[in-house]
Amino acid sequence: MTLRFDVLATCGNARRGRLHTAHGSVETPAFMAVGTAATVKAMTMDAVRSTGTEIILGNTYHLMLRPSAERVAALGGLHKFCGWEGPILTDSGGFQVMSLANLREISEQGVTFRSHIDGTPHELSPERATEIQHLLDATITMAFDECPALPASFETLQNSMRLSMRWAERSRKAFIAREGYGQFGIAQGGTDPDLRLESARALRQIGFEGYAIGGLAVGEPQSEMFATLDVVAPALPEDRPRYLMGVGTPIDLIGAVARGIDMFDCVMPTRSGRTAQAFTSRGPVCLRNARHKDDPRPLDDECVCPALNGISRAYLHHLIRSKEILGAMLLTWHNLYFYQYLMRRLREAVAAGRFADEAALLHEGFARGDIPAL
Amino acid sequence: MTLRFDVLATCGNARRGRLHTAHGSVETPAFMAVGTAATVKAMTMDAVRSTGTEIILGNTYHLMLRPSAERVAALGGLHKFCGWEGPILTDSGGFQVMSLANLREISEQGVTFRSHIDGTPHELSPERATEIQHLLDATITMAFDECPALPASFETLQNSMRLSMRWAERSRKAFIAREGYGQFGIAQGGTDPDLRLESARALRQIGFEGYAIGGLAVGEPQSEMFATLDVVAPALPEDRPRYLMGVGTPIDLIGAVARGIDMFDCVMPTRSGRTAQAFTSRGPVCLRNARHKDDPRPLDDECVCPALNGISRAYLHHLIRSKEILGAMLLTWHNLYFYQYLMRRLREAVAAGRFADEAALLHEGFARGDIPAL
Repeated sequence: MTLRFDVLATCGNARRGRLHTAHGSVETPAFMAVGTAATVKAMTMDAVRSTGTEIILGNTYHLMLRPSAERVAALGGLHKFCGWEGPILTDSGGFQVMSLANLREISEQGVTFRSHIDGTPHELSPERATEIQHLLDATITMAFDECPALPASFETLQNSMRLSMRWAERSRKAFIAREGYGQFGIAQGGTDPDLRLESARALRQIGFEGYAIGGLAVGEPQSEMFATLDVVAPALPEDRPRYLMGVGTPIDLIGAVARGIDMFDCVMPTRSGRTAQAFTSRGPVCLRNARHKDDPRPLDDECVCPALNGISRAYLHHLIRSKEILGAMLLTWHNLYFYQYLMRRLREAVAAGRFADEAALLHEGFARGDIPAL
Repeated sequence: MTLRFDVLATCGNARRGRLHTAHGSVETPAFMAVGTAATVKAMTMDAVRSTGTEIILGNTYHLMLRPSAERVAALGGLHKFCGWEGPILTDSGGFQVMSLANLREISEQGVTFRSHIDGTPHELSPERATEIQHLLDATITMAFDECPALPASFETLQNSMRLSMRWAERSRKAFIAREGYGQFGIAQGGTDPDLRLESARALRQIGFEGYAIGGLAVGEPQSEMFATLDVVAPALPEDRPRYLMGVGTPIDLIGAVARGIDMFDCVMPTRSGRTAQAFTSRGPVCLRNARHKDDPRPLDDECVCPALNGISRAYLHHLIRSKEILGAMLLTWHNLYFYQYLMRRLREAVAAGRFADEAALLHEGFARGDIPAL
């Protein structure tokens, strides 16, 4: 294996680990900040680092269209291009082609689609998606997969999963191994246990440096997602990192760590930061609400984030109402810090063998709800 | 005088000074960053500080409408509200009421207008504008004035200037003096030398802690602005700071410092940062242009700003084309840094008695134009 992963401690099914890459190490369970178009929206890379983020995610779909993989390669790769020296994981483009592109056609070969920017035709296949990620110099490359929307019939899920497994094999063949770099396969199969187990077996047979669980958090209830994790996580190799794609809320993260997941990514902290929603130790708070207008108190008594030091709810409310860019900047920064703070607490709790207690404490905090209005 | 100002050195008519305020000192000539709605747009206050900015400007018009002066006062004043501990100068609202409000009526008493946000009626007068600035806890309060658009007839300019002088006297009476705080009068009179001298005399007779020159950079050629400065600057007290309002380009600043101006404010560096224009030692550069698409070079060889360390033109171009907030953040930061870098060079040159040489060197750089495309 060219991507070393150490499981340092376990507590129940929860794992405390460390991933060693060519671009530095990552403490797990880890939350990856989403940097869609070579930027974590509304943040400088220094600000991203200040949150404790160790690895960011780039989107193959967006980057292949603009500025293009070949251009990024000519400019020295994604790390240099965007000023992030740490590890970068890129998705394969599959999920976004399915959900974003309005004109697309899927075949055994791959997907053809039109750019949402200028309508130009493009193609993604296991080989091309892997090549693009190589051109971007992704630390972690994702296999190309199809991700069907839920709910879907058993037959749809089965066909789609088996196509994804054939694509996974082609992706693996196209991957150029390098020390400290790796490729993750993606388990599919919706919420069907048998399909998920078949998918996990297929991926193990191919062999990857890590294993992702895709096709969840696409509309199904949280309980179904957790039930699926209960089936699929134990079916993945114990000595390799497990990555739950596109998840989730703080409560999703706690529940998934409890089920043995090591890595996450989600637009939630960053997107919410641009829509006035803040994550706090007492659950989410919408700062657009008039109740904050005269409130001199900090957003969260427990918050020690570098973004909101000395900043009142009234000021955040003012920035949001005035549509000031700084509102998005500060809330995004805070939210990402909050997510990393949560991950730190979970990591420490696993290491200390008190994960269940910590999870209960966090849940209790979220359930309290926001402080009463003044 | 409750606002100490020391002229430390002169070189020709250019002055190197230091203004001592209740919120810290300001090295002059100084450029004040515009923080319209209690935020320097697209920048954190830490970033503003990192550029060497020592004083920022707040807009009475915007702040009185949202969040309102009374609310800011209840929240502890503007410094605490926005997290800027240094000096803050607030304008009087006059200029913006004239130029922004679509429904306004001017009388001897003051101006009535409707909010551009919700259409509610408001009033500004010398007394109310001064009270608002007191509520905001402005370090430097500006007298309330009328600022006519140029070109205008002599009679219009004369009537307007004399109204402004009567308003200046009422503003002064309404001002509550405190140690380390001050109020500046504003000379008006368009580009007419006699009116400007009459205005300067009227202000000296009232007596202020500083003197501003308003009603310039509103459409007249630069040569007329400079000619007006040649008349009005020497007519203002030598031992008090002189502030040229709303100016300007780097070349405007150099020419105005040469004519004895000590303080400036302008939206140019910040607004340009949101519209893809960067200021460099070789003049302005538009990063939206396709010529930068593949360009791995830094924006400016001479730039050592904290925003663009390691950042290529290609990346900036990509951010702008992708409409990413980070594009506005980085360019605004860079531009404000560039303005402060320029002011530092001018201050050092005055102190060293080589202002004309430095001005010539800067002009030469700007005239070179951008580096050739790759």
